[in-house]
Amino acid sequence: MKADFIIKNAMVFMTFRQCFEKRDVAVAGEKIYAVSPALSCTGVREIDAEGKYLIPGLIDIHMHIESSMTYPEEFSRITLPYGVTTVVADAHEIANVFGIKGIRWFMDQKTQQDIFYAIPSSVPSTRPEFETSGAEIGEEEVRQLAADDRVLCLGEVMNARDLTSEADTKIRRLVRICREKGGGRALRIEGHCPKITGAELCRFIYEGVDADHTQQSSESVLEKTDLGMFLELQYKSLTKEVVDTVCEHQLYENVALITDDTMPDQLLHGHLNRITAHAVKQGMPAEKAVYCSTYTPARRMHLDDRGIISPGKLADLVLLSDLEHFEPDMVFKRGRCVFEKGKPLQQGEIRQKDAAQEFYHSVHCRQAVPEDFVLKTDRNCSSVEVSVMEIQKFGTFTRHGIRRLDVKDGVICWQEAGLSLAAVFERYGIRGTVSYGLVDGAFTGPGAAATTWSHDCHNLLVLGNSPADMVAAQNRILEIQGGYVAAFDGKVQAEAHLPIGGILSDRPVEELAQQLAQVRDAMRRLGYENNNEIMSMSTLALPVSPELKLTDFGLLDVKSQSRIPLIQGV
Amino acid sequence: MKADFIIKNAMVFMTFRQCFEKRDVAVAGEKIYAVSPALSCTGVREIDAEGKYLIPGLIDIHMHIESSMTYPEEFSRITLPYGVTTVVADAHEIANVFGIKGIRWFMDQKTQQDIFYAIPSSVPSTRPEFETSGAEIGEEEVRQLAADDRVLCLGEVMNARDLTSEADTKIRRLVRICREKGGGRALRIEGHCPKITGAELCRFIYEGVDADHTQQSSESVLEKTDLGMFLELQYKSLTKEVVDTVCEHQLYENVALITDDTMPDQLLHGHLNRITAHAVKQGMPAEKAVYCSTYTPARRMHLDDRGIISPGKLADLVLLSDLEHFEPDMVFKRGRCVFEKGKPLQQGEIRQKDAAQEFYHSVHCRQAVPEDFVLKTDRNCSSVEVSVMEIQKFGTFTRHGIRRLDVKDGVICWQEAGLSLAAVFERYGIRGTVSYGLVDGAFTGPGAAATTWSHDCHNLLVLGNSPADMVAAQNRILEIQGGYVAAFDGKVQAEAHLPIGGILSDRPVEELAQQLAQVRDAMRRLGYENNNEIMSMSTLALPVSPELKLTDFGLLDVKSQSRIPLIQGV
Repeated sequence: MKADFIIKNAMVFMTFRQCFEKRDVAVAGEKIYAVSPALSCTGVREIDAEGKYLIPGLIDIHMHIESSMTYPEEFSRITLPYGVTTVVADAHEIANVFGIKGIRWFMDQKTQQDIFYAIPSSVPSTRPEFETSGAEIGEEEVRQLAADDRVLCLGEVMNARDLTSEADTKIRRLVRICREKGGGRALRIEGHCPKITGAELCRFIYEGVDADHTQQSSESVLEKTDLGMFLELQYKSLTKEVVDTVCEHQLYENVALITDDTMPDQLLHGHLNRITAHAVKQGMPAEKAVYCSTYTPARRMHLDDRGIISPGKLADLVLLSDLEHFEPDMVFKRGRCVFEKGKPLQQGEIRQKDAAQEFYHSVHCRQAVPEDFVLKTDRNCSSVEVSVMEIQKFGTFTRHGIRRLDVKDGVICWQEAGLSLAAVFERYGIRGTVSYGLVDGAFTGPGAAATTWSHDCHNLLVLGNSPADMVAAQNRILEIQGGYVAAFDGKVQAEAHLPIGGILSDRPVEELAQQLAQVRDAMRRLGYENNNEIMSMSTLALPVSPELKLTDFGLLDVKSQSRIPLIQGV
Repeated sequence: MKADFIIKNAMVFMTFRQCFEKRDVAVAGEKIYAVSPALSCTGVREIDAEGKYLIPGLIDIHMHIESSMTYPEEFSRITLPYGVTTVVADAHEIANVFGIKGIRWFMDQKTQQDIFYAIPSSVPSTRPEFETSGAEIGEEEVRQLAADDRVLCLGEVMNARDLTSEADTKIRRLVRICREKGGGRALRIEGHCPKITGAELCRFIYEGVDADHTQQSSESVLEKTDLGMFLELQYKSLTKEVVDTVCEHQLYENVALITDDTMPDQLLHGHLNRITAHAVKQGMPAEKAVYCSTYTPARRMHLDDRGIISPGKLADLVLLSDLEHFEPDMVFKRGRCVFEKGKPLQQGEIRQKDAAQEFYHSVHCRQAVPEDFVLKTDRNCSSVEVSVMEIQKFGTFTRHGIRRLDVKDGVICWQEAGLSLAAVFERYGIRGTVSYGLVDGAFTGPGAAATTWSHDCHNLLVLGNSPADMVAAQNRILEIQGGYVAAFDGKVQAEAHLPIGGILSDRPVEELAQQLAQVRDAMRRLGYENNNEIMSMSTLALPVSPELKLTDFGLLDVKSQSRIPLIQGV
């Protein structure tokens, strides 16, 4: 036998039966060579795995590296030790800032983790007349990307309105290009369709989008399943109700576990392994959770060379002590041990991304002044009705509220009404505009935060209760050319630097996470209450996430994709 | 709604839950437009399917059109009414006779049924030094075929010995070409590995062959499943034992139902629908049998556009009255009704294949004379020990027997010993040789049969108990330039004409089936006892089907792929 080493006596995951059996696994080069109840070979190294579980490397088929505010090399360094050996990254944040050039920079990075790519389908997320992005992904870019073997799918198609229109919209053209690629073997078309149901859902799927990774309910799981959709379940979808539904109806074949967005501070505690553990905690049998984070995602993405421990497949292997925490003892990537518990991580890849100089200095807008945050009206009246984005305590959806605010000397008294002001500074130097929205449920007292990490266009979003703090935060973002800043008392309290495109750090994630934790703490001290303050604030600018959002063009009703005036009747 | 028609009130197969629910299904053009509990649209035709079952079109991913002794157009005409809307054909018989030219002729035929192709991996089935075929499929042919979008896989790799050798054998090179096609999205590699187990099976799978369609036992099902093999179950594999194993371990995801070989006379009674019914009869729940003949085969072949009744997928639909017989009431192919019970079949496609003149007149060998069937030995002895192919009553495997036969005047007395003589006339005009073998369990009295439909090389095989009958049969085959002939009393008793390449009829299957039934009857009257006389005799020449077989080079031990002398000690 020409094996390089043998993992002996492990309880090995039998993918097609979703159970564990005691087996020896021989590895030769990058591949699994043999799986047998008893293997031995003189002169070949043996790893005793008695009492341990051996599962295939985890495969995350829907995620955004930029959600961790880092770049592929660094992402790979951090997440391989969690057993995540393959990801399919939808680099739509870097694409919104730099277009295909940004995606190519990602793809050019050398990583031990296999990083495949989704083509960002919605850059910008809606249309150029609703929001200003740094770049667009159009037909030509899609064609170029689709020709690359590392590109497996069109990423989260979300504009249901344009997709299901009779007109020849851009998204319909992009979907067509991807469906036509290579005859029968087209790219997968991934969707983002929360709250779409019935005839509209049929129409959405009819166009070729047959996966969804957004939040699910028991009803949506069953409806989408029966209409042939593959479901990708992230943390927020793994409610008891949804897990019970998946288990009751044995939907495992049709389900993959995914991360979608992992913040840098979360990233230090785990990645898809944590989601897998969470699924188990929520009641999914461990064997099924392993199946849904290894085999079903591989199959969905046509990655026939992995996701199962069988001869000839890639030797992407994770050794575990238990099926509860999913914290690896050892991780093998393509037959190489890339992590062993108790041994220091390989540090070779930690380095400042100085190779990416062309991606620095990308925030181009003027400094704010206090007057920017005084909301005026021409109307000669004592009060006005305004539309308000109501932040929820959980999740990123807002509700569209209506409030009557006093007007004094032509100035709308939003501060007195206990609201926060949101301002979006177009930051690509294209329009030079500022737009405004009002927010309920953000900060409880004075203070502000500002960021260029504001999905998906990453314009400069400022949110605050006091103009002085808003000015301080906005100005600091310009100085550091991107990041997340919290201010209080006219001074910056915490900051995370994101100098690459205004959205990515060039420092090790450990360092970035510390910075971000400080920003989070500062936001909480200012009264921001949400399960994820950062994501909650950043998605205030995301016009495809319900219900009312703010772009550099102003407020947008997400479902109808129509502009909403801040002041009613205007 | 832009639907063309709506099928109302059917019990529709919910693929991902493997159950039936009452739904309406709207079809627009070639695709399913919507699936909903209640659809209606004024002016759109409605088909009332109350009380009926609607399932996706059946998909057969491992089969040989030539086994039905016919050509694609005719095959499509006969099998679409059975609900078989897609097949993946391994045209390795026509390839053995005419090479890639024969495959191209198949692919060029216009059929309503979608016919995809497997690349014949083993043409000839072993090596040119073991058998003479009309053509070879080599690296260049594989490259050409792999580039065609209708080609989905490399077909049944069977030469385990060459595949797992360390040497750079032809089959290893062919597998490599197919694995490397298009990066991650390689072709499927289909296998043929009966009786291979343990380390040898690991090694076989390691080379990339991860499906098998040969006969299974409960043990082989579990071993292959645990090693990551996809199992394609044909009639002979659907034993109670195997079905019980599949059901007990819930292996449906990993199983597809297939036909492999369907004789022309069988073809008049059904195709994959009959296998599906048989699986149900053997204890597989009907919902699982439907799943394994629609969705799992589509997925195995990366046919993401079909195999499920959901919006955007092909409107390949079968309406059934029950889930027991699987005899369709209506069949839709790409949204068109192609069969309705009680209405005559479309006859448009029945016509003699006169377009294929270049594929006629392909049997090139001399006429046999009585002396050809006298077996002599140089040895001066009164008896010799000979190797005998022992035909079984069921299946195509032979056993290797040893018998001592009298020798009189240098002539081996095989007739007196109750044996039959098999002779293979090389018929491509290349070597002009005749080889001999002895058979136990064929005819019980005088008589003979001859055929050019002798797998895989389709040389002229003559089998008989009396030289005069053998001469008559052989001579008649030459006259009709291919077919199946049975002779008795020095005269032809029955014959089926296969003038295209010596293996295909140019007549409607109904006519061919009658001819073949007469040959079968004649063989039975001559004492041939096997569940499929035709297949049993034809595979006497197939040197990859255990245990001892006869090619134009002589006897071959299949497992060791070594030549065996007819007379021991020679």
